[in-house]
Amino acid sequence: MPASDAPLDILAIMAHPDDAELLCGGTLIKSAGRGKRVGVLDLTAGEMGSSGSAATRGREATAAAGQIGLAERRCAGLPDSALENDNESRHIVAEHIRALRPSIVITHWKVGRHRDHRIAAELVRDACFLSALKKLDVPGEPFRPRKLVYATAFREDADPPDFVVNISDQIERKLDVLALYTTQFDGVTQAGEVYPGGDRGLLQQVRVQMAHYGSLIRVPYGEPFRVDEAMEVNEISSLGVSTY
Amino acid sequence: MPASDAPLDILAIMAHPDDAELLCGGTLIKSAGRGKRVGVLDLTAGEMGSSGSAATRGREATAAAGQIGLAERRCAGLPDSALENDNESRHIVAEHIRALRPSIVITHWKVGRHRDHRIAAELVRDACFLSALKKLDVPGEPFRPRKLVYATAFREDADPPDFVVNISDQIERKLDVLALYTTQFDGVTQAGEVYPGGDRGLLQQVRVQMAHYGSLIRVPYGEPFRVDEAMEVNEISSLGVSTY
Amino acid sequence: MPASDAPLDILAIMAHPDDAELLCGGTLIKSAGRGKRVGVLDLTAGEMGSSGSAATRGREATAAAGQIGLAERRCAGLPDSALENDNESRHIVAEHIRALRPSIVITHWKVGRHRDHRIAAELVRDACFLSALKKLDVPGEPFRPRKLVYATAFREDADPPDFVVNISDQIERKLDVLALYTTQFDGVTQAGEVYPGGDRGLLQQVRVQMAHYGSLIRVPYGEPFRVDEAMEVNEISSLGVSTY
Amino acid sequence: MPASDAPLDILAIMAHPDDAELLCGGTLIKSAGRGKRVGVLDLTAGEMGSSGSAATRGREATAAAGQIGLAERRCAGLPDSALENDNESRHIVAEHIRALRPSIVITHWKVGRHRDHRIAAELVRDACFLSALKKLDVPGEPFRPRKLVYATAFREDADPPDFVVNISDQIERKLDVLALYTTQFDGVTQAGEVYPGGDRGLLQQVRVQMAHYGSLIRVPYGEPFRVDEAMEVNEISSLGVSTY
Amino acid sequence: MPASDAPLDILAIMAHPDDAELLCGGTLIKSAGRGKRVGVLDLTAGEMGSSGSAATRGREATAAAGQIGLAERRCAGLPDSALENDNESRHIVAEHIRALRPSIVITHWKVGRHRDHRIAAELVRDACFLSALKKLDVPGEPFRPRKLVYATAFREDADPPDFVVNISDQIERKLDVLALYTTQFDGVTQAGEVYPGGDRGLLQQVRVQMAHYGSLIRVPYGEPFRVDEAMEVNEISSLGVSTY
Amino acid sequence: MPASDAPLDILAIMAHPDDAELLCGGTLIKSAGRGKRVGVLDLTAGEMGSSGSAATRGREATAAAGQIGLAERRCAGLPDSALENDNESRHIVAEHIRALRPSIVITHWKVGRHRDHRIAAELVRDACFLSALKKLDVPGEPFRPRKLVYATAFREDADPPDFVVNISDQIERKLDVLALYTTQFDGVTQAGEVYPGGDRGLLQQVRVQMAHYGSLIRVPYGEPFRVDEAMEVNEISSLGVSTY
Repeated sequence: MPASDAPLDILAIMAHPDDAELLCGGTLIKSAGRGKRVGVLDLTAGEMGSSGSAATRGREATAAAGQIGLAERRCAGLPDSALENDNESRHIVAEHIRALRPSIVITHWKVGRHRDHRIAAELVRDACFLSALKKLDVPGEPFRPRKLVYATAFREDADPPDFVVNISDQIERKLDVLALYTTQFDGVTQAGEVYPGGDRGLLQQVRVQMAHYGSLIRVPYGEPFRVDEAMEVNEISSLGVSTY
Repeated sequence: MPASDAPLDILAIMAHPDDAELLCGGTLIKSAGRGKRVGVLDLTAGEMGSSGSAATRGREATAAAGQIGLAERRCAGLPDSALENDNESRHIVAEHIRALRPSIVITHWKVGRHRDHRIAAELVRDACFLSALKKLDVPGEPFRPRKLVYATAFREDADPPDFVVNISDQIERKLDVLALYTTQFDGVTQAGEVYPGGDRGLLQQVRVQMAHYGSLIRVPYGEPFRVDEAMEVNEISSLGVSTY
Repeated sequence: MPASDAPLDILAIMAHPDDAELLCGGTLIKSAGRGKRVGVLDLTAGEMGSSGSAATRGREATAAAGQIGLAERRCAGLPDSALENDNESRHIVAEHIRALRPSIVITHWKVGRHRDHRIAAELVRDACFLSALKKLDVPGEPFRPRKLVYATAFREDADPPDFVVNISDQIERKLDVLALYTTQFDGVTQAGEVYPGGDRGLLQQVRVQMAHYGSLIRVPYGEPFRVDEAMEVNEISSLGVSTY
Repeated sequence: MPASDAPLDILAIMAHPDDAELLCGGTLIKSAGRGKRVGVLDLTAGEMGSSGSAATRGREATAAAGQIGLAERRCAGLPDSALENDNESRHIVAEHIRALRPSIVITHWKVGRHRDHRIAAELVRDACFLSALKKLDVPGEPFRPRKLVYATAFREDADPPDFVVNISDQIERKLDVLALYTTQFDGVTQAGEVYPGGDRGLLQQVRVQMAHYGSLIRVPYGEPFRVDEAMEVNEISSLGVSTY
Repeated sequence: MPASDAPLDILAIMAHPDDAELLCGGTLIKSAGRGKRVGVLDLTAGEMGSSGSAATRGREATAAAGQIGLAERRCAGLPDSALENDNESRHIVAEHIRALRPSIVITHWKVGRHRDHRIAAELVRDACFLSALKKLDVPGEPFRPRKLVYATAFREDADPPDFVVNISDQIERKLDVLALYTTQFDGVTQAGEVYPGGDRGLLQQVRVQMAHYGSLIRVPYGEPFRVDEAMEVNEISSLGVSTY
Repeated sequence: MPASDAPLDILAIMAHPDDAELLCGGTLIKSAGRGKRVGVLDLTAGEMGSSGSAATRGREATAAAGQIGLAERRCAGLPDSALENDNESRHIVAEHIRALRPSIVITHWKVGRHRDHRIAAELVRDACFLSALKKLDVPGEPFRPRKLVYATAFREDADPPDFVVNISDQIERKLDVLALYTTQFDGVTQAGEVYPGGDRGLLQQVRVQMAHYGSLIRVPYGEPFRVDEAMEVNEISSLGVSTY
């Protein structure tokens, strides 16, 4: 696991291949398109999925990586549907963080439809902390991401997003990328955190939810996020999002 | 203001003509279609709207009433954009309540984009209480609605809906009814509580938001509501809305 | 662990024998009395209780099952006071779920006085999810309950119940069933999630708390619950529970 | 309105005669019994009540004052069911506060079943602030109570009490005092903030709710309160109320 | 009230002279120093303050305006300690908004120690909405600020700030400006929303609170704010404020 | 691990040496100074800290214990940065609780900057419960602390403290005690839960935060805490902390 050539600007660490695309695909496409170094670390290979094998899902993930413009996509090889926030898993994730040196890490919200999502949120938060400890017995130089961000798309919890990223220019490419996951999304009405809207197809369901999140910042499509910290605003007169 | 022939099953009391349609039009169409006696009380004639006069808005409201299947539509004649929860306004609303005798009253959520909406929520809650007082100096027999329900569609507040009504079979008619309000919704991207989604047309914006609320109960389209009380469930095994 | 003859309508999965009775005994009695197939899965045998052995507690649980009218009562044999949400425990619970095929699963609230209760809430939620996975290495056909419900009686947390079940006609039988647990409740003032009310006897303390929950739906006695999802209401004019 | 001989230790300012007794009667009896100077200011004479006149309610209130051991009971003469937080009402209440000089003021919670209760909470909070202003054109010396406390009994809002007062030794006298209000409570199942428990009589309904609040501090009967400020604890080892 | 030469970038609308300085003085100094057009509208002249007359307070406010670098400071002349959110007051504020055309309006948080602060928050929010109505009978061209921001410094409510502005380079000037209000802050330990810290002088108390808010974004001094809407983030990799 | 001579009045159980001092050092000094028996149980030796060894940190902790006036300071020897709430750890902590018999246990808040802090909160809560079980296979007599208290200093979560302890007379000694931890705090700007305030030194940062918490009870310096239960107030007229 050698260090990559340069630190990543953004690393999404999610439980299964396709989770990053569903939850923050538009945001990743947007940053990559601006020349940011963007990566995805899939914690598991999704081998417990009822459709598709680890191999076919891996090919889908690779194809998606190309379309998003990822500088890096890796799989941590942790067990699907049996993810645990234990010391061994934390060390594995910390080693990837040391190798990839991301400024910003994006992960699942703290509550999830799938237990792996909830565990991932906790595991990633802890691994980001630990990877900076000099005495941690893990390969690589100590490193700590500056910030942890939670992707909250589709979650029905009461907490509204702290911020939304405008993905109006990326929505079609996001849906195209999702369409690459044929074993997962073809002919289904729900997947991952996406609850069904009757018999509406999954891609269309993703589209209407992104439209909902877009309305929160008054744009056609958006992806929602939460952070644990207050935000900093440098110049208050440049704040967007109209109140009325 | 003579008492109508029979008590209403449902009365929506909203600030402006078209608010009831935007916030709970599908639900009213659904109940009316089942033979419930459904009414709307518009608190103001919407005379301060930048487009349309009170007269044209009144004609639109009448046309909409027919399409919804309302047993009753009235205007309380309170001042648009200057609604107050004062004693006089409460007595006016209480008199309508005594005349219409609704079991369920639906009104605005307690916080709103437009101040009239916030005031309406409070005014309606208070008037429903007062109308039952024997000594209240208001025409009509003392009467109290059984329950107050808040229509929370489009509100960005943190509180998620307590319940959602499936309007998948009513969504097209709801949008058709909204289209009758040409002075208000033609060529606009926002109105009432509806925040814009970029340059998406208002009816399409309503559609995607109803799709979002539908997802909360796993159906194509829904309208969301909150209540102040716990709900009663008679038989727990008949509960719908899947957890996973 | 053969599949039972027919799927269960309701399955309460609780940490210790008597927890189901304390938290939702009235609701179980009510549904069983209407011909629903109701079951209880005790995760542990309660062998760490200061009074009574696993054997005596088992006899009490069996007697209670008869009085409630349960179609099924099982013990998962997990360790009392050392319950863990680990992979092995999840598989054991998932196997029972596959065998019993319940539509609705009731479990503990997410926070508890006793750590086993908190762990049970999480373990049950995760096991219900996993039991539907085709590739899960657990006996039985893949199956997922439609819905998870949390019994919140006695919990002092801030969140009020989403709904309450009227158990006014079942309160005396509920208390009679509790009285069968002589090793646990005889002469005590507190047990399980029930905090003491000075030296008031446990059964009387349960009674006053059920009266409190009943007041939330304006009836003599009730049992409170929470769900993670919005509720669906089919006809808004039939909503009960008066606002004033 | 001459100043009384000595400042009051506690003044309950409530909307209607009997509100103080329902919401914090036990606490007032307890403090009065210890020699504290306790008073009640009824904002209205309750003249809009469906049963009883202002005169009969006044006699009931006087009788109750004697049984509680009040040093002072006054009526501010504001209009029942039409209470407003306007400048004139604030000045009237401020004048009473200047005359009575209470250290602690108890009032209604900020949300109420009856609109007068909600308005009272706001009116009392504002009047306590204003009464200290030197330039306020109100008779009496500037004075500000040290603290405002909200009595939250019977409220179904999500916020649990900040603290509870043990009234186990006062519960019977509290109920006896309530029984003096024959025009209000005789043969009824609900009143003021007290929601009904089916056909359980009002006094018995009060009793079970006080038992519920008592459980929050592990005693037979209690009355619940909230404050806007953090509490101060002098010696942490003397904290009561067991966690388990 | 002629329109000023150019629209304001920021307008703080607060209840009393000195409130803007206490709550967001550093932020105003910062933006003015960058060439933004910054203004303050004092709703009242503070004539009810126990120290200082309206005239002396006016001179202090003028001196402060110069030190902050304000493009505009006005007083709306509404009554101190008797502020109301009534139609007349809303029209007066709306007229100022039409004249000053601010992009961003900053006001008090929705709950306050002083009632005028709470009322101001509501009055300002409503007036910003109304000032855009073509039919509103108020001088000036219809205009609506893009956004409303609440300054939450010193408030003890549970809600943490949505964002904080770094005022480390402005803290000394902020304190110097406060020192100009000699009638209000000289020799006192509390004022406005500032609760006392024992006998610590007011300016020092402001300093320690600004240090506390600074810690929320990891800088020496900050001022906290809340907004009703989600925030928009353009490039997620540029987010500041470390998580660990 | 023999039982100490007398039960402890207060035991702080924290993850690392110096956590107790940072979070509640003033409160411990205050109670010890009044003759209470106060102890600290460090769960780990802090051996993963980037500066200092377990040995040097142990010497610092011993020196601090003397300055605080502790009757007892122990280290549980659990692994730093790998703390787990597992059965073995719970038994180790339970054994210490049985030996030390504290009335009140203070621990970390439930969310933390460092994962060990979050785990400690849960581990301590569970161990306090278990230590009372007769059948628990742990040396010592069954014992349960009366109450669990969370020290919330520096936490940025939304929940404000339930209560604050005035440490104005202890602040200098608290800072002196912290200064004994030279390997941890010398020349640093952040540590434990203390977020940095730019380049302000750690002790000065602790001072300003304690000043902030003090303001919540209107005193110069304070330490904040939360509890899971309602508080009991014996005499409402003796409540401190002014509302205005």
